[in-house]
Amino acid sequence: MDYIFSEKVSALKPSAIREILKATQGTDVIPFSAGNPAPEAFPVDEIKRISAALLEENPILALQYNITEGYLPLREALKKRMKKEGCFNPATDDLIIVSGAQQGNELSCKVLCNEGDTLICESPSFIGSLNAFKSYNVNLVGVELEEDGINIQKLEDALKSHSGTKLIYLIPNFQNPTGKTMSLEKRKAVYALAQKYNSFILEDNPYGELRFEGEFIPSIKTMDTDGRVIYSGSFSKILAPGLRVGFVIANKEIIQKIVVCKQVSDVHSNIWAQAVCHKFLETVNMDEHLKRLREIYRHKCSLMLSEAEKHFSKKISLTRPQGGLFIWAALPDGSDMVGFCKKAVERKVAVVPGTAFMVNENDITYSFRMNYSTPTDEQIVRGCEILGKLSKEIFD
Amino acid sequence: MDYIFSEKVSALKPSAIREILKATQGTDVIPFSAGNPAPEAFPVDEIKRISAALLEENPILALQYNITEGYLPLREALKKRMKKEGCFNPATDDLIIVSGAQQGNELSCKVLCNEGDTLICESPSFIGSLNAFKSYNVNLVGVELEEDGINIQKLEDALKSHSGTKLIYLIPNFQNPTGKTMSLEKRKAVYALAQKYNSFILEDNPYGELRFEGEFIPSIKTMDTDGRVIYSGSFSKILAPGLRVGFVIANKEIIQKIVVCKQVSDVHSNIWAQAVCHKFLETVNMDEHLKRLREIYRHKCSLMLSEAEKHFSKKISLTRPQGGLFIWAALPDGSDMVGFCKKAVERKVAVVPGTAFMVNENDITYSFRMNYSTPTDEQIVRGCEILGKLSKEIFD
Repeated sequence: MDYIFSEKVSALKPSAIREILKATQGTDVIPFSAGNPAPEAFPVDEIKRISAALLEENPILALQYNITEGYLPLREALKKRMKKEGCFNPATDDLIIVSGAQQGNELSCKVLCNEGDTLICESPSFIGSLNAFKSYNVNLVGVELEEDGINIQKLEDALKSHSGTKLIYLIPNFQNPTGKTMSLEKRKAVYALAQKYNSFILEDNPYGELRFEGEFIPSIKTMDTDGRVIYSGSFSKILAPGLRVGFVIANKEIIQKIVVCKQVSDVHSNIWAQAVCHKFLETVNMDEHLKRLREIYRHKCSLMLSEAEKHFSKKISLTRPQGGLFIWAALPDGSDMVGFCKKAVERKVAVVPGTAFMVNENDITYSFRMNYSTPTDEQIVRGCEILGKLSKEIFD
Repeated sequence: MDYIFSEKVSALKPSAIREILKATQGTDVIPFSAGNPAPEAFPVDEIKRISAALLEENPILALQYNITEGYLPLREALKKRMKKEGCFNPATDDLIIVSGAQQGNELSCKVLCNEGDTLICESPSFIGSLNAFKSYNVNLVGVELEEDGINIQKLEDALKSHSGTKLIYLIPNFQNPTGKTMSLEKRKAVYALAQKYNSFILEDNPYGELRFEGEFIPSIKTMDTDGRVIYSGSFSKILAPGLRVGFVIANKEIIQKIVVCKQVSDVHSNIWAQAVCHKFLETVNMDEHLKRLREIYRHKCSLMLSEAEKHFSKKISLTRPQGGLFIWAALPDGSDMVGFCKKAVERKVAVVPGTAFMVNENDITYSFRMNYSTPTDEQIVRGCEILGKLSKEIFD
């Protein structure tokens, strides 16, 4: 029979990144293409210990249905933690556990946006979220991302020309794919614009705790005096992504709607994983744990930057992230960037062509994304040599 | 600020059942209201053993990102198992792991239905699925459920008057909330109607393996010669619902779209749970395990039926399920059923008013749902006494 799909999903394609991952899984291709945390960053021993104790002491908790809002002790622990950061206001906010920040971003769009409503995002931005928004048939408008965050003038232009814009989606810290961080001034300016044009802000912060350089910059959520910021957080990068545990903080009314939508999506998130996250927060010294992660990523990032600088053609410019997992590499204007990425994978190094992150497929970019958390040190060195040789053949 | 939600979710309310569950959690109210598997049905020792071995032997697998389609060995094991049942055709079908059958049902609707498209279901039916469909703003049309399944004449009438109906949603085995089972004749008739009116069928089968009486009836999926049946299965009732692992079988084209929608929803399901399910299928004698579960539910169901028959007013009629978790109790026509349920909870027995399962809130029903899997034997006896006394006060 003929399969005619709904309008909202018929044009939706699998994420180019996940397709590259599938294609290179189990091969000898060097993975600069993933967004996986470094395996050595996983606190395996602690999780083993916590899981064994949980299944010994309270197996029914870990196996039975639970409430959609999430495991209560985990919610309480997170509220306390986020209140300290100024990101949770007990008087007006609530917090729900979701199956990864991805679900938080998806459901935020679902509860707020009708088909055709405008949602503004940085361009380039995280493809997973962009596809989630597209799956609700919203009018996705990309605004140029500069070194210190979104172009404020262009953001205002977009808000003006798309009156009634529902949501502004931002990844202020170590953005995916660029590794760029939004300055404090711009965070304030974005919030002021959201007030002026009465839009919500969806602040996605999966990498915030992985800052290994530079000074901490407060979240936009800390400036939220009128309940317009939805904050998405995650355990994927600080604990383990296979758990699929994230959380959303927003005004209670918004969280109530997200609860209903989560209920019809997956009832609740895996409860073993929620209980593991809770015990981890309670029994592990988080400062020490995060310090260890930051050391791992500082080392890997600086190794990739120094190897790339050593080997790459001088015509390629790189971002210098202060945290997170990604470096954004710009080829000279006019280059065949996609061709470069294809040749790279033929030589056994996978990177992600920047086009995968553009709001419109036909938007032009000459950049590609490199990830330093997944490959081993040896792979980083070897991969940079290979990309370097390729770049010199083409550009020098 | 004013919170204006999207049209599709603004009218959506939390499931009445889950609200009752939240309200009665941790109280001394006897829970005839839940849909939880019996805690004694959980294979705790096996899960402990499997989890410990997994985290010992392959912790990175259990913690790292995986592909959206699901853990490959689990998919292969399920395909094999479902092929044996005639529910998986390797030539045309594919199988995706989802975060519970709930997600399978939600995503089936998302990929097929535009806002306003008609989706036909049994009335009453499972509120979680109905709300999932409503959250995509479909035109939900309920068709009367008889003792042996949906009323075929009324189904055809509905298909005629709603031309282009996209989906027919059915729970053929031990339906939630009624416990009723669709006859083989009706399954064939429904399939023939779906062919005649070119609709898809979404066959939700979470309870199918919990048959403790009567003869096995083949799934509608086994009759699917032209790829119009989407089959939703689950580990929630045969292993543990806290795991949030289910699966969907459908034509490859449909599964491809569900993959994309799942990718933007939660990337993939918790991978520890997927690996646990896989090892469970591989290392536990499933026939023995299911036999044990069926014994538990046969006992509990027959205890509740005999106690209810002993104590209830003779004016209340009960369904006699051949499997699953629920009994549907009908008060005399014209009774104040919601009032009865309210009085029951005041006397510390929670049941779910049938209105919670109706397609339209104003549809009339005089029935309520009783669950026998969650309460202990003592609670079943005591609860039936209390409900019996109440029913006699009102109806005798």
